[in-house]
Amino acid sequence: MTALHFSRVVIVGVGLIGGSLALSLKRAGVVGTVVGVGRSGASLDKALALGVIDEAATSLAEAARGASLIVLCAPVAQNFALLHALEPHLQPGTIVTDAGSTKSDVIMAAKTALGDKVAQFVPAHPIAGREQHGVEAALNDLYREKKVVMCPLQENSRADVAAVRAMWEAAGADVHVMSAVQHDAVFASVSHLPHVLSFALVAQVANAEDAALKLGFAGGGFRDFTRIAASSPEMWRDICLANREALLREIGTYEAMLAHLKAQIKSGDGAALERVFQRASETRQKWGVASAGAHNIEP
Amino acid sequence: MTALHFSRVVIVGVGLIGGSLALSLKRAGVVGTVVGVGRSGASLDKALALGVIDEAATSLAEAARGASLIVLCAPVAQNFALLHALEPHLQPGTIVTDAGSTKSDVIMAAKTALGDKVAQFVPAHPIAGREQHGVEAALNDLYREKKVVMCPLQENSRADVAAVRAMWEAAGADVHVMSAVQHDAVFASVSHLPHVLSFALVAQVANAEDAALKLGFAGGGFRDFTRIAASSPEMWRDICLANREALLREIGTYEAMLAHLKAQIKSGDGAALERVFQRASETRQKWGVASAGAHNIEP
Repeated sequence: MTALHFSRVVIVGVGLIGGSLALSLKRAGVVGTVVGVGRSGASLDKALALGVIDEAATSLAEAARGASLIVLCAPVAQNFALLHALEPHLQPGTIVTDAGSTKSDVIMAAKTALGDKVAQFVPAHPIAGREQHGVEAALNDLYREKKVVMCPLQENSRADVAAVRAMWEAAGADVHVMSAVQHDAVFASVSHLPHVLSFALVAQVANAEDAALKLGFAGGGFRDFTRIAASSPEMWRDICLANREALLREIGTYEAMLAHLKAQIKSGDGAALERVFQRASETRQKWGVASAGAHNIEP
Repeated sequence: MTALHFSRVVIVGVGLIGGSLALSLKRAGVVGTVVGVGRSGASLDKALALGVIDEAATSLAEAARGASLIVLCAPVAQNFALLHALEPHLQPGTIVTDAGSTKSDVIMAAKTALGDKVAQFVPAHPIAGREQHGVEAALNDLYREKKVVMCPLQENSRADVAAVRAMWEAAGADVHVMSAVQHDAVFASVSHLPHVLSFALVAQVANAEDAALKLGFAGGGFRDFTRIAASSPEMWRDICLANREALLREIGTYEAMLAHLKAQIKSGDGAALERVFQRASETRQKWGVASAGAHNIEP
């Protein structure tokens, strides 16, 4: 047995993210019992059958009893309701964390729903995923060499922050710490904005009178640019609303950039246009080399 | 020998596109001599050494003598100067065509530069490419099962249009005919606009104060969305300016779509936002299935 040990870990939402965390902690030998909580009995049965969880519960109240750690892995829009339901049953000594891709909103939800108990809530965001979803897609090495961002609260104890960090490190991840505001700005820029832009382009083509003709001649550039537009509409609706402020700022900056390029095209200012393209092309090429091998899928 | 035969084909600009056409016509056995014309002696020497061309010429005047077919494969911004230089030497019976990814501009250039001889110019656009560039990357099956769009002029003879079509079919391509205006609108929408949007996003991230932090956390969505932002700045500058009108219309429509999504995010209208995402996601998923296997790279 390692020095790190969680006797009872509750995973709320046993899909790809929650299921992979359960498998990773089991593989690392740092967990006693894993309890899965979900709305769908069928999905929990599958998780039990696959050995991802050891017990299934449909009530948070029941699951929370004696829990060392509760990890929220359900869609981000459910966090407030989950935390609200959890609060009366949250015992001292239990740590709560999450795996959501937006942070300011869940912190706001936790402060409102948990009151003084918010000190027990340590926000985190693992940057990993796969194209497949659901507990069947869960892997015991999904987080290996992947990044996890933690956004600890002033209220958190050092011990609780260290325990959550140690949990993710046991799962193989590299943990980074930043403020929730910074986290949300970073992901609004490099993840949430590109998703909105990609959805917007495909919606525009789909709305065109000659949509079938256009799609018939769309090639490899369109394919890459729009791959993320095939993502879950519900999930991305929730992320856009959860990270509204940072995303609106990024959209505003993007609108200005696009207006800039439009003006250069309109006036035929090839030199200015090329300078912007050049900067983008160099940046992307360097990034492509530096990040080769890191094939993270958001959120 | 097949019924189709071009005794002397002049390829102006012997890179990936022109070189692959030369190899494809040789493979199909429909060409006598292939003459390469270029500004760089070294590049023509390479094409000769690789057997892509049979003769090299640095002057269009010299190359045009006795040509059955002249194919313009240089960057689109050079077309007017090339056609202007060609005009005094263009003999009756020689067909001129091009491989550029914009069509209204080259037609305008041809009408101005060639005068009455514009009847000999049959505009075309092969939708194929590779990530590698230059004559070393040329393939004799680059166009197999790829699409070629022809935009014949009212002035063209039926025989000349049929000959250009037969040439592309000999190279293995599927030929489609549409008007230049329609062509430019289609490619502005599914190729040129996505390139501008991708360049714009990377430029925005590169310009951010915390660019290094943001790039450090960029994942798979960013990777796909921005792959085309690593493209040649010069080439895309030229395409944007060559297809200015259609592209500006598409940018305008996109700005409206983005403003729409921004308003929905701002007002928290999740249902409206999800409807747009849903339409995009379904369209992209269906397109992905329908177009599987067709891995065209623009332009």
